[in-house]
Amino acid sequence: MMNVATHTGGGPMRAVALSCTLNPTPATSNTEALTRVLLDALERQGVETELIRVVDHDVRPGVESNMGDGDEWPAIRQRIVASEILVLATPTWLGKPSSVAQRVLERMDAMLGETDGAGRPVAYNRVAGCVVTGNEDGAHHVITEIAGGLIDIGFTVPSQSWTYWNKGPGPGPSYLESDEGHDWSHSTARAAAANLLAVARALRQSPIAPPPG
Amino acid sequence: MMNVATHTGGGPMRAVALSCTLNPTPATSNTEALTRVLLDALERQGVETELIRVVDHDVRPGVESNMGDGDEWPAIRQRIVASEILVLATPTWLGKPSSVAQRVLERMDAMLGETDGAGRPVAYNRVAGCVVTGNEDGAHHVITEIAGGLIDIGFTVPSQSWTYWNKGPGPGPSYLESDEGHDWSHSTARAAAANLLAVARALRQSPIAPPPG
Amino acid sequence: MMNVATHTGGGPMRAVALSCTLNPTPATSNTEALTRVLLDALERQGVETELIRVVDHDVRPGVESNMGDGDEWPAIRQRIVASEILVLATPTWLGKPSSVAQRVLERMDAMLGETDGAGRPVAYNRVAGCVVTGNEDGAHHVITEIAGGLIDIGFTVPSQSWTYWNKGPGPGPSYLESDEGHDWSHSTARAAAANLLAVARALRQSPIAPPPG
Amino acid sequence: MMNVATHTGGGPMRAVALSCTLNPTPATSNTEALTRVLLDALERQGVETELIRVVDHDVRPGVESNMGDGDEWPAIRQRIVASEILVLATPTWLGKPSSVAQRVLERMDAMLGETDGAGRPVAYNRVAGCVVTGNEDGAHHVITEIAGGLIDIGFTVPSQSWTYWNKGPGPGPSYLESDEGHDWSHSTARAAAANLLAVARALRQSPIAPPPG
Repeated sequence: MMNVATHTGGGPMRAVALSCTLNPTPATSNTEALTRVLLDALERQGVETELIRVVDHDVRPGVESNMGDGDEWPAIRQRIVASEILVLATPTWLGKPSSVAQRVLERMDAMLGETDGAGRPVAYNRVAGCVVTGNEDGAHHVITEIAGGLIDIGFTVPSQSWTYWNKGPGPGPSYLESDEGHDWSHSTARAAAANLLAVARALRQSPIAPPPG
Repeated sequence: MMNVATHTGGGPMRAVALSCTLNPTPATSNTEALTRVLLDALERQGVETELIRVVDHDVRPGVESNMGDGDEWPAIRQRIVASEILVLATPTWLGKPSSVAQRVLERMDAMLGETDGAGRPVAYNRVAGCVVTGNEDGAHHVITEIAGGLIDIGFTVPSQSWTYWNKGPGPGPSYLESDEGHDWSHSTARAAAANLLAVARALRQSPIAPPPG
Repeated sequence: MMNVATHTGGGPMRAVALSCTLNPTPATSNTEALTRVLLDALERQGVETELIRVVDHDVRPGVESNMGDGDEWPAIRQRIVASEILVLATPTWLGKPSSVAQRVLERMDAMLGETDGAGRPVAYNRVAGCVVTGNEDGAHHVITEIAGGLIDIGFTVPSQSWTYWNKGPGPGPSYLESDEGHDWSHSTARAAAANLLAVARALRQSPIAPPPG
Repeated sequence: MMNVATHTGGGPMRAVALSCTLNPTPATSNTEALTRVLLDALERQGVETELIRVVDHDVRPGVESNMGDGDEWPAIRQRIVASEILVLATPTWLGKPSSVAQRVLERMDAMLGETDGAGRPVAYNRVAGCVVTGNEDGAHHVITEIAGGLIDIGFTVPSQSWTYWNKGPGPGPSYLESDEGHDWSHSTARAAAANLLAVARALRQSPIAPPPG
């Protein structure tokens, strides 16, 4: 079990978005562009936010929190543990979350065995949401796959805490190549932000209690 | 939009479990047997619970809250709306939720367009969990599919708010035909009950607010 | 084990499409409209086709090939067994196959234990494909869920043996309410028909052999 | 479009298995151990087989067949194109295919736009199967996700062309740490091998034809 720096009841809420695009910086990311809409809505409510492009870091394959020399996951993991709100943002490839998103979930698998100072699994009393883009159909499945993984790890997933921009039928433009449906994706992002923050606040005021004993 | 009887802030918490077994009463249901463990844990905390075997009722195909003469969904829907906690319980067939579980989700699709008196989607400020059994591998996918649907409809899904009993590799006994792993499934059910209740209480104290305006 | 009428090596190929719309006849079905494009392409190649709207029949819940008095599945099952090509056609609800499609898969589960005269599982040497429509994102997941089930049951699923018409982002029109993307969905349907027929012919000429006995 | 070396009608069949374990050589792989059972069955039928542990190679993120200097995918891709049978073998993490398996699918996405000398998508007339292991429930979903991706790319997936060893309920031993259920997993592997080979032979004798031109 790792020593876990837990969030406290006070201070501003913090949100971290993990962008799981396949393209390293400085490539433009459709997924990050839509994620910014959700993060901006959080910031307007006083939440401190940051966005990490995971592919820019050497996140090693494995299911431990630290896979050894050169592994850059521990620093990312520290940002998750320092935040009350996690946003997992991913493109859609073959109708599924990106390999980078799955890598993130694999590394978070270790959190199943890590507890906070009070004996609770480390992800408890944190909320998580999802942002998806793609140049074809697939968003709802990606959202569902990610939500399922995060609930297993211990996050609470609030109502409608996601947004997406995927267009069908058939392959077509990417989010930044089309204006179609942006209004829907943005208003859905703002609603997701409101729900993430509301449930994060509810859990801060009235957290899941430590196990008896 | 239907007139929605909403839960209030006071009184005991209520939970409704929808059993989606394929077998009408009086057949024994593995899924219900495991669901009882979760409901018993809720009752020990003062929650009022009920379990409805959906296949005993004539739930018509469709995506409206009332599909007309003889449709028995409206009475079931009323129990969902009267409860702060929903447990969807289903067997695993072909690795997927049962057709009865999918029928329930389809009928709940109408809730996307229904709001409470304050203008919130009717499922907001309610929590949902899942119980799965099966005679082969498949539980985690079933849990994920159901969680994804319920989040879309507007429920909040708390951390690790599920349990299951599915055994692999290959086809084998059902839950009630084997003692293997019951301890794990039961303690997981009790943990799910605790998390469902904790988040339901948090949302009662500090609910998702109505939309501005 | 049921007595199984098996297809022979001679005569025209036969295809049956099972429409899993939630709406009984005479309601218009988007799913059937797109399915007709695929069936028409098969017919132009000399395949005998039929389309069954499953919801018009009393298909009982269960996982046996005959669930007793009044169960109308046995007649549908007979059409599957009489055909070399199966097309499962379904709308998308909550991002998943319809409850009627899942009901069909559950009833076909019994085929796992049924063999032809030569000892092969009854679905062997048959091919299957998929047609999906919906008023929002979700098609690829629906296709995948159905393909997975049919492969388990014993069907061979040829390359790209599906088509769909689902449009995102967000809820929008149905297939018959929009002209957008019909060309793509139709040409994809024709390609699926060609692949289904090609692999069905290959398996007729060179079938999976009976198990050594 | 890349210049594609296609398989011809003559000579022995070839199979390549891509092991998507997270652990580089020389770590023991449960997934590979079970995959060997399937490959051995193919070899007894005269198929030439090879197994590649993908994580030993620097397979860059992206969706092109060549992501530039140092990318080791092109050599792996060449082995796929030289084979009539593909076996994708993966562990289960968070109930999903490994990040390495998703990386492989992403790189194969480029095959959608690549054709053989006759104008057919490069994956046509090839068959694919799947091997899954895990220390908890999840195999059927992993199999389905991979089958769905490979069908989209253009492979034909034969009846029951998979095997798995995942044990539930709850976390438990890995394949090589338990003897339970090995017989089932092995006989299922041998049946999968027979079906893969039978359909590969059928497609060699009677291939999907080039598009009319």
